[in-house]
Amino acid sequence: MNPGDRVHVERGDTEYEGILMPSTSDTEVVVKLDGGYNVGIAREHSDVEVLETDVFAVGESETNDASTVEFDDDLPTVALISTGGTIASTVDYRTGAVTAQFDAEDVLRAVPDLAGRANYRGRVVANILSENMTPDVWQDLARAVYEEVEAGADGVVVMHGTDTMQYTASALSFMLDTPVPVVFTGSQRSADRPSSDNVMNAVCAVEAAKADCAEVMVCMHATESDDRCALHRGTRVRKNHTSRRDAFETVGAEPLGTADYAGVDSEEVTVSFRRPHVERDEHEVALHDDLETDVELLKFVPGMDPQFLDVLEGKAGVVLEGTGLGHVHTDFIDRIGDLVDDGTTVVMTSQCVEGRVCDRVYDTGRDLLDAGVVEGEDLLPETALVKLMWALANEDDPETAMGRPLAGELTERSVPWT
Amino acid sequence: MNPGDRVHVERGDTEYEGILMPSTSDTEVVVKLDGGYNVGIAREHSDVEVLETDVFAVGESETNDASTVEFDDDLPTVALISTGGTIASTVDYRTGAVTAQFDAEDVLRAVPDLAGRANYRGRVVANILSENMTPDVWQDLARAVYEEVEAGADGVVVMHGTDTMQYTASALSFMLDTPVPVVFTGSQRSADRPSSDNVMNAVCAVEAAKADCAEVMVCMHATESDDRCALHRGTRVRKNHTSRRDAFETVGAEPLGTADYAGVDSEEVTVSFRRPHVERDEHEVALHDDLETDVELLKFVPGMDPQFLDVLEGKAGVVLEGTGLGHVHTDFIDRIGDLVDDGTTVVMTSQCVEGRVCDRVYDTGRDLLDAGVVEGEDLLPETALVKLMWALANEDDPETAMGRPLAGELTERSVPWT
Repeated sequence: MNPGDRVHVERGDTEYEGILMPSTSDTEVVVKLDGGYNVGIAREHSDVEVLETDVFAVGESETNDASTVEFDDDLPTVALISTGGTIASTVDYRTGAVTAQFDAEDVLRAVPDLAGRANYRGRVVANILSENMTPDVWQDLARAVYEEVEAGADGVVVMHGTDTMQYTASALSFMLDTPVPVVFTGSQRSADRPSSDNVMNAVCAVEAAKADCAEVMVCMHATESDDRCALHRGTRVRKNHTSRRDAFETVGAEPLGTADYAGVDSEEVTVSFRRPHVERDEHEVALHDDLETDVELLKFVPGMDPQFLDVLEGKAGVVLEGTGLGHVHTDFIDRIGDLVDDGTTVVMTSQCVEGRVCDRVYDTGRDLLDAGVVEGEDLLPETALVKLMWALANEDDPETAMGRPLAGELTERSVPWT
Repeated sequence: MNPGDRVHVERGDTEYEGILMPSTSDTEVVVKLDGGYNVGIAREHSDVEVLETDVFAVGESETNDASTVEFDDDLPTVALISTGGTIASTVDYRTGAVTAQFDAEDVLRAVPDLAGRANYRGRVVANILSENMTPDVWQDLARAVYEEVEAGADGVVVMHGTDTMQYTASALSFMLDTPVPVVFTGSQRSADRPSSDNVMNAVCAVEAAKADCAEVMVCMHATESDDRCALHRGTRVRKNHTSRRDAFETVGAEPLGTADYAGVDSEEVTVSFRRPHVERDEHEVALHDDLETDVELLKFVPGMDPQFLDVLEGKAGVVLEGTGLGHVHTDFIDRIGDLVDDGTTVVMTSQCVEGRVCDRVYDTGRDLLDAGVVEGEDLLPETALVKLMWALANEDDPETAMGRPLAGELTERSVPWT
């Protein structure tokens, strides 16, 4: 008996039928019931009968081919890349919570609705909760996406934990020049919960990966219902709620588009774009994966200990998350000027989240500009951090590059600030 | 000729008529035209004629009485306390931008529409841009409000820069037990700009200060139009846009109420409350102004230098702004546990801004709880910082207090996290 087998389990008076899920538990089996729920059943006193072996025999090989499922010439090929997180996780019933332990193949088993939508290539780049994501994993992931597109994938879906998805999506937006969509998706609710969002998000992400777009996007629930996913530009998206399924929002604009989902009983998903976006084409994928990781983000708050500035000394780059239009306490400005004089690129953003930094209105701002601080325009602070890492490693003039849109992350000032 | 005089200025072919404004310029006079705009006129070659002296002779005395304007027994008394910021500023035409240089009396001159709405007592606690606000000014301000309410004010309006208004409003929410409203207001656009919001905000704030409420609130534009202000609970409000007039939002709920503004030509402002709130009563105002200021906020981002944790060693309190449900990189958890073991109270909040922290779902969260981190529930990170400063100085059990609503800053978990 192996994960993917269709099983019948009898324990005491209760019977279960469904697909055996991977589990790290020695004492329980986890079965995905036909209704979509996962249950954990104690192995002891359980009779397990295998009804059918390997129901979704996809992605079985370790060699990254299209697996034992027959290749369908009429379908595009979508590369599924797993980095870990809830969408790639199962439930560990011993501890009562969710641990990361799936790979892409397992996801295909967990989401039968993906079958028939594309030819899949599965690949695991990492298996970590996204709070443990680091710039070197961004680089591994960018290289994996590059290889998949080079190898002919018509689109890429990246399964990622939601905590830091926006940072990774930003990183790939800068590192990749892609002719096909790269679609991040994840899950706010684990697969064992009735409210799980993983099936709809995964299905919509695959459909988005087949669409006429060549951007790095985030595909997550657009509402609290199972009606549609929003397609957010990777550099403008933010996780704005801790737990809601529609936690992800495009900041300062509407999402690029939507993937309308007719429900688990229908196969229909309609992807549509409502904003200008880069369209799919035939150009060669390019990878610029250098990063200067000696970059920090610091949020300014009243009463803050100036010792935090000590940590910034000698850094290649610093993103400040200031107040309002981009301010810090006047007492900090000389120290910030010293950082700039010593060669640190310092970029100002705002903790307001929405709107544009403008340091030409108030004394504090003008003093910051005089000290050599670069205005982060309407960059999200989190995107500014990633962009600065990228710009310092890839641009001849990183300071100027910070004020120029490279991957839809920034809207240029159309009129003077009014 | 003095600020407040009605003047006629002739310079070359151009004539101006309006109220002389305070100005630090030696070379220009600033006149508020009848349409509401301020203009700076070079003194050289200008003929200035005083048409009427001291048009709004209010708040003239330094002794904090009701001034030379006749006291109207039928009107409530509102204390106007100025701390600086755009609302209390004029335009310095030499530098082209805004500096803080008004006191409360000047604001009355600058906002003629305030006349007749209340008897005013004016008071200046500080004259700083709010990015320079510090916990000791919060304390000075709390004491000033306490004294004004003790002295019989029926409501208090605090004029404050918008950058850190939410921090100060939170601080006063915890420090004061008030029987009357304490209403913060400010301005996102300076008085010299056609789009200035200072008149409507000040008028609505005064009306809110007369209303049946005994909470610390923020009164700012509710929309981009001049139609109404929103009344936000001081502990749940956030400046969510750098420049829009309706930048302030109540996070996770609707505002407590609104002040509907019929326009500059009408005197009518209707204050209404739509959510439960503490009502005005006759109890004695109480002041609890101790703060433990040895508290820091640290925002976690991927790739962050662990040296930031060095700064936290020995602190009385730390607020972490984690990812998602309240996470940081696993590598940080032992260091955070050491802080707790050494006596630092560590509170977890989320950079998602909306939603509730819950560290019982994922491994990382449970490890953080095991390390002794306190869950900040649905506290805004900025409010959590202020609350922790207050709780460490005023509560026997600060950790428990952080999970209990003290000033509407937190909603208790009604159902288990689902």
